[in-house]
Amino acid sequence: MKIDKTAILGAGSWGTALAWLWARDDRSIVLWARNPDRAARLQASRENSDYLPEIKLPGAVQVTSDLRDCIDAGVIVFVTPSTVLRAIATQLRQARPNESAVLLSCTKGIEHGSGMLMSQILGEIFPKQTVAVLSGPNLAGEVARNLPTATVIGCADQTWATALQDLLSRSRFRIYTSADVTSIELGGALKNVFALAAGISDGIGLGDNAKAALVTRSLAELVRVGVAMGGSPQTFYGLSGVGDLVVTCYSERSRNHTVGKRLGRGEPLHEITASMKMVAEGISNARSARECAQRLKIDTPIIDQVYAMLYEQKPPLAALKELLGREQKAEGA
Amino acid sequence: MKIDKTAILGAGSWGTALAWLWARDDRSIVLWARNPDRAARLQASRENSDYLPEIKLPGAVQVTSDLRDCIDAGVIVFVTPSTVLRAIATQLRQARPNESAVLLSCTKGIEHGSGMLMSQILGEIFPKQTVAVLSGPNLAGEVARNLPTATVIGCADQTWATALQDLLSRSRFRIYTSADVTSIELGGALKNVFALAAGISDGIGLGDNAKAALVTRSLAELVRVGVAMGGSPQTFYGLSGVGDLVVTCYSERSRNHTVGKRLGRGEPLHEITASMKMVAEGISNARSARECAQRLKIDTPIIDQVYAMLYEQKPPLAALKELLGREQKAEGA
Repeated sequence: MKIDKTAILGAGSWGTALAWLWARDDRSIVLWARNPDRAARLQASRENSDYLPEIKLPGAVQVTSDLRDCIDAGVIVFVTPSTVLRAIATQLRQARPNESAVLLSCTKGIEHGSGMLMSQILGEIFPKQTVAVLSGPNLAGEVARNLPTATVIGCADQTWATALQDLLSRSRFRIYTSADVTSIELGGALKNVFALAAGISDGIGLGDNAKAALVTRSLAELVRVGVAMGGSPQTFYGLSGVGDLVVTCYSERSRNHTVGKRLGRGEPLHEITASMKMVAEGISNARSARECAQRLKIDTPIIDQVYAMLYEQKPPLAALKELLGREQKAEGA
Repeated sequence: MKIDKTAILGAGSWGTALAWLWARDDRSIVLWARNPDRAARLQASRENSDYLPEIKLPGAVQVTSDLRDCIDAGVIVFVTPSTVLRAIATQLRQARPNESAVLLSCTKGIEHGSGMLMSQILGEIFPKQTVAVLSGPNLAGEVARNLPTATVIGCADQTWATALQDLLSRSRFRIYTSADVTSIELGGALKNVFALAAGISDGIGLGDNAKAALVTRSLAELVRVGVAMGGSPQTFYGLSGVGDLVVTCYSERSRNHTVGKRLGRGEPLHEITASMKMVAEGISNARSARECAQRLKIDTPIIDQVYAMLYEQKPPLAALKELLGREQKAEGA
């Protein structure tokens, strides 16, 4: 195993940004793309024109579509869409990666049907390996422009958390550590659903006061779901919770916010998704989040309304009215 | 005393918006402006062209510069700048307002020197009267355009809190109640300081990732100061804490954010304040917040750096670098 080699599975915007970031000090990086043609084009041109046109990949990045090129890496990073992470991890297992490799999930989502978080899927497929997660307010385009960014690595094993922090931090990419893996992953998965709601509010034109109220309630809802799933409130008030929630709800460069905005303006969902190259994780995660909430019997009005808008053709204005017009009472009651 | 009469002291944008909001159901409203000429102009034209040109004051609003017109009101609302609240309250006392009137502070700030919150100043000047506060993510211009807004009324006496909620709620101005007056006021006062920092970050062009990290730390710093001053963390995670923090840090219509942005772009503070009609509370509150933090011996890196930029000519970039470049460690440590 090569501890100084990192394999990144998934060549979307975030995977490409991380490859660029981590290769800058000549660290050996393998970037895996599922599609062989795309991998070959990316290897030759060094430019990911579809997802992250801003940067040129340094020579230290080898692009491949063969998972066997990844099996001797010391750190294997998952940056695939959440809906395909299980399939790709299963394929990787067949290629027999080194058993000492750490598996680091940068994918944000909850599996539909099982309600499993990405680290739980990896733990199931690779029961002997150390699994960690990375999540925070990290717009890929800004990382690729070397703008200052902070993130969190969660790992139950604190020795590994610190080792990954040392290995993957850069001067403008600061990593904090935490043992609360569940909360970190949930923050990353659910914020996309809340960003859809915030985007819808913007699309309808409800204003910044209403949006702030919605974001405040989103945080309360995140904590409620999170605590029921075994997370700790304190983590949700940190970078991977509040931090990721605000960047996703407020940045014009956030995909889920953009999808919500277009929904709020009246565009049908199928037209929006057909026009997008990238995956807006909030769409599939609204469904799995709702399943989780129902299973755990938690009150999740925002997730429910987003689900109704996406999957039951509920008009955005009616859904938002219901959210903003709930009974007045003592705060927190 | 007329319980159905409300006096609003201060005819800036927020005072004017509240007068408009509360007068719409023909409730009798007195809006007090310190300057007699301005009061007369406003009474005649019904338009506050300097601070809130969007609206016309309904007939139910009487504009005056004579505090004696306010003394028979059942609710007396303070919406003055924080630096003059004590002086105006002292003047009001000389006019001998009805002793059953509730005093409601909508002013956000900490008194320089004493470290007192607005409700504490009112409690000192009017020891026998019920004091309440109103705070939340409430951009005046949006309230005046009747956009949906939520806020919190804090009052130690829950019967009064509920009575004020009934009296002052409107269909698009929803009021929640709380007994945690200190936290509600602190959220309103400190968010202006944090909004200056967020604006500076935007002005320098550090990006949305850095800003989200800064806002996350601002929330942690707010809770730290708040708990030391006797507040409860839970309140800071609600509308008057997180909600007001995000609207002030992210809205293009937030004054303190705008001041910060111009500072970040290199404009000197005196030029910015000279060009502004309105008061950016963050400038004076950075000073009183720093005094409080020093007295309580709490670590407040963001308040300290904002203070240094405003009062010690520290260059914004150096201050932000210091904030974003602190030692990497476990989150929350």
